[in-house]
Formats: sequence, C-alpha cells, structure tokens
Amino acid sequence: MLNELRKDYFLDRWVIIASGRGKRPTDFAKPSDDEDGGGLCFFCPGNEETTPPEISRVEEDGRWIIRVFPNKFPAVTMEDGPSTGRLMPARGVHEIVVENPEHGKSVSDLTPERMSKVIDVYTERVDAMLAMDGMEYALVFKNHGSKAGASLSHTHTQIASLPFTPTLVAEETAMSDKYRRDNGSCPICDIVREESGGERMVFEDEHVFAFTPYASRSPFEAWITTKKHVRLLGELTGDERLSIARALTGVLSRLRDGLKNPPYNYYIHYSPSDGDLHLHIEVLPKLNIWAGFEMGSGIVINTMPPETAAGFYRGV
Amino acid sequence: MLNELRKDYFLDRWVIIASGRGKRPTDFAKPSDDEDGGGLCFFCPGNEETTPPEISRVEEDGRWIIRVFPNKFPAVTMEDGPSTGRLMPARGVHEIVVENPEHGKSVSDLTPERMSKVIDVYTERVDAMLAMDGMEYALVFKNHGSKAGASLSHTHTQIASLPFTPTLVAEETAMSDKYRRDNGSCPICDIVREESGGERMVFEDEHVFAFTPYASRSPFEAWITTKKHVRLLGELTGDERLSIARALTGVLSRLRDGLKNPPYNYYIHYSPSDGDLHLHIEVLPKLNIWAGFEMGSGIVINTMPPETAAGFYRGV
Repeated sequence: MLNELRKDYFLDRWVIIASGRGKRPTDFAKPSDDEDGGGLCFFCPGNEETTPPEISRVEEDGRWIIRVFPNKFPAVTMEDGPSTGRLMPARGVHEIVVENPEHGKSVSDLTPERMSKVIDVYTERVDAMLAMDGMEYALVFKNHGSKAGASLSHTHTQIASLPFTPTLVAEETAMSDKYRRDNGSCPICDIVREESGGERMVFEDEHVFAFTPYASRSPFEAWITTKKHVRLLGELTGDERLSIARALTGVLSRLRDGLKNPPYNYYIHYSPSDGDLHLHIEVLPKLNIWAGFEMGSGIVINTMPPETAAGFYRGV
Repeated sequence: MLNELRKDYFLDRWVIIASGRGKRPTDFAKPSDDEDGGGLCFFCPGNEETTPPEISRVEEDGRWIIRVFPNKFPAVTMEDGPSTGRLMPARGVHEIVVENPEHGKSVSDLTPERMSKVIDVYTERVDAMLAMDGMEYALVFKNHGSKAGASLSHTHTQIASLPFTPTLVAEETAMSDKYRRDNGSCPICDIVREESGGERMVFEDEHVFAFTPYASRSPFEAWITTKKHVRLLGELTGDERLSIARALTGVLSRLRDGLKNPPYNYYIHYSPSDGDLHLHIEVLPKLNIWAGFEMGSGIVINTMPPETAAGFYRGV
C-alpha cells in the first residue's frame, strides 16, 4: 500500500503514514524494561514527609486518594532574573499531582469517578496558577514509563506554569482562529462532526468524543474533546468531566492491556486567555523514535495508520 | 543557578536551559546498549548483492569506500496516487549512502579527506533528486545508534526527497527571510560574527564555523556552517567542503570519545529554490527525552548549557 503524506485538520503539520509496513497493533506491544528500584517511594502513603510541603489533597474514608505538592526539581521557579529579547527567567510554578496512592498502579486503574476527581484537582491547580502574578498558562502533562520521561515510577501528573502561552498552544490557537476566519466555525467542533461514526472514532457519548487524528504523529495517538465548544477546564460541567474521565481511562487501560503497558504522554490543551481554542486532551504513546528525518524535516513517519489504531481502541 | 528561558537567534523556538541541575558533560556518558546481532551485514563489502541495485560508488585502491543504493524500506516512493487538500502520495526517492565500508566504524572515524568525499556524494545525490519530476527538496540525514533511530548498525546516511520543502526547512527559510527584512542581513552570517571567539564557539578556520546554539534543544547540540553565505551544497568549494568535513568529524569524534559513543542525528539544511537560507549542518545528540512537557508545549528542557557543551568540544 502506498505511503501517504497527510496534513493535520487545521495545523501546518504533515506526517507520513507508512501503512506499507503492514504492522499489526500487537507488533507495537513490547514488554517494558522499567524496573522498580524497590527503595523508598517518595509518593507512597506514609512517606508524605519526604515531599515538599503539601499544597492540597483529596481524601476518601480518612485517607488521601489525590495529593498535590511542589516538584522538588522544578523546571520553572518564581525567582526573578534579567530579561532580554532572547532571554527571560524560567518563571513559574511546577507541581506534582499523585493521582493514585497505590504503588504500581496508574491513572488507567482509576474508576471514571475517581479520574473525574483528578480532573477537578487539575482544574483547581491550573486556576490557582493562572491567578499568580505574570503567569499566562499552566500546562497539565503526564509522563508514563521511563521511556516517556517519568523519572519516578509511582504514577503522577505534573503541572507547570509559564509567563507566556507555550509555543504549540499558541500555534494551535492561531491556526484555530485562522480556520474560524476562513470557515466560520471551530475546527475541533468540525472534527467532532466529521469523524463521528467514522473509521477513526474511538469513543463517543452525550458529552465527549475521542478519536485517532487523521494525521496522527505517533502510533495510537488519541484525542479526547468535548462535543460542546468548551475553552477552559473550569467551564466543564460535572457530567462532561465524568465523560472525559471515562474516555481517558478507557483509552489508557486499552493501551495497558492491549500493548503491554507502553510508555505514553498526555497533556491538556485549553484556550489561552486571548484565544478561543477548543479544550482537548492529546494522548501520545511513545512508540516511534523521532530520528534524523523527523528532526530535520518536522515531518513524522508513523507506521500505524490511525484507522487501524481506532479499531484497536474500539476492540475490533 | 536560575533556569533560563532562551529564544533561538531567529526562530520562534524557546528552550529552558536548566543549568540548575549542575550536570557535568561526563554525566551524559552512558555506555550504549546497542548489540551487534553478528548476522549477515547487508552493508558490508562482499554482501553487495543483498542491497537493491547500486546507484553509485567511490573507489580507492580498487575497492569501494562509499556506496549508494535505494533504501529497501523507503518512506517515500515514486508511485503516484490521489491528492486532496489534506493528502498527497508520499512521493520521492529514498537512498542509502554507506560512508565507511568498515563494519563497527562510523563517519567519526573518517579522515577529513574521506569525509569530504562523502559530502561530495551527498551533493551529487541531492542534485540528482532535485532534477527529478516534482521534487522540491532532498533531506540528507544520519541516524547513529538505535536510540537515534538506526535500524542497521553499519554506519550509513539516508537521503530522502519530497514533493515540497519540509516544514522545518520552510520555517527556517521564512524566519531567515523575515530576519533579513528586519535587519538587512542573513541571520546565520550574523550568528557567525556574534559567536566568533565566544563561549559557544566549537571550531573555526578560514572557511567554516562550528558552535553550540544559544538555545540548544539537546545536550551538546552543535551547528556547522560556512563563513561565506552559501545556499546550496553545490556551491561549496573544495576547500569549504574539506573544512566542513574537518569540523563535522571533529565534533562527532569528540562525542564518541568523550561521551561513550552516544546516539545522535545530523542533517543538512540548505536553501529551497525559492529562498535564501544559509547552508548548515545540525548535529543533535539524542541525550534527552522529549516528554509530556516538550510534546505539549513545544518548549524543550535541556540540562546541559551550551556554554559548557562548547567547552567540552574545545577540550577544556
């Protein structure tokens, strides 16, 4: 089968879908070589004093089920420093959210109800960060597995704020604005309509829609978004949050069970204050290497067609 | 030390230089876990019949020292297919250049004179590809080590042509044009002047300049460029080619010896036909993981300040 050059729905992003390789989903299932050191886990219940002072927690039956504290090794800090056209201090706050107290488990093991509480915590912390002086954006992201950048094996999400809208979010917002000017509609609202019931659909209910993007950058890339045009985490209703939680844990547990717990990242893109970007979560399994071709061209080669990946998620 | 948000010289690309981690160059030296399967090597002398039909070779003393043939598993092919706004056939040619017949050796083991002949071959193949119908660009790139995407251990470079200018090259060209409109000069000519004799300088002679970029995306990233404003590989004089070869093998052998042969990519960016981009080679060691923060924000965290990396290359 001919390899295809595919362009994203609204971004200036091309990928090569190399279906010619004829890979099956299970060809991507490789046992993880992550080892649990077995030493003291800083994120486990009982070791709370080993983390920086707690910011917040959610309890159930008198024990915490979600816990937030500052990252001990932050990429950004609230210290100030000199600025020039090419330099600014890396100002911001960098926090850790432990979403599951149970060591060896992950977010994929949470019930949708529990995951919904995690999204609640994401929302609270993002709002708190955006209220801080000079902060423009707070990125919620997760690294699962050492190959996806997790330096501690106990499951956790990170939230980092920045003094400007991150490059990719700014680009998505600008391209979304351009699409709206050209077409009179939101590109992500249009994607939901276009992909609904199609071969790239992963999950759908009254509130949310999950799909594998037409120009997926990684094998089994999946996006989860709301059917309603929602800009911010704080705009989500309880029902929408629960639906997102159901879609996200569904996607992640399918990866865990069907592909031997592969490394992955996910992150939440919501609208910057001066934009109108449709909120969505991007799940990116780390199953291809960005090599010289990708780094030099900006075009990613993906050997798993999103149509096959969607079938995998739907369990067919 | 405060982490810094640094912007590229002329691209809209920010990185966080996390000097706070205080890493030394040798902290990045990890023994490779690449294993040589020991089976038949398709790229070794004597096994020429196992590759697709040879396109060209360079001989010395009656034996080939450089050999070019089509990639058996091409990302792009000259087959045609349907096109829409979001889809085109991945048309192009995809070739392999074996730059060193000796198994277990790499380009870093070549003399500058031999490497200069490799650049000659790159030039010939790029020119041949650009002469083909509908081809707009040919990317020369190298994957060294399995973590950098090399699927066969015998050293080789790949060249792949495309029906359009790759996204990143187009972006560099557009931003370079913008810089020229704003400043009346070429940004890369200006970088050479600005970094000359400075703390990020790696190598300099009459013809070329090598440096670690101010906003380096990876530990030990290095760029090699000409002092003269050169657009295309074919414009290089023999002396310039030899100087580039000397700079490139110098950088790569320092990586090999000082950091235990780390995985790396390099690729050549020259000007598309409708632009005026200054030719340069980007060397990107694969020593950091692009995790959720990088994938979600487009901002890379680099724990090795380019000033320290340049010192490593200069041997101080």
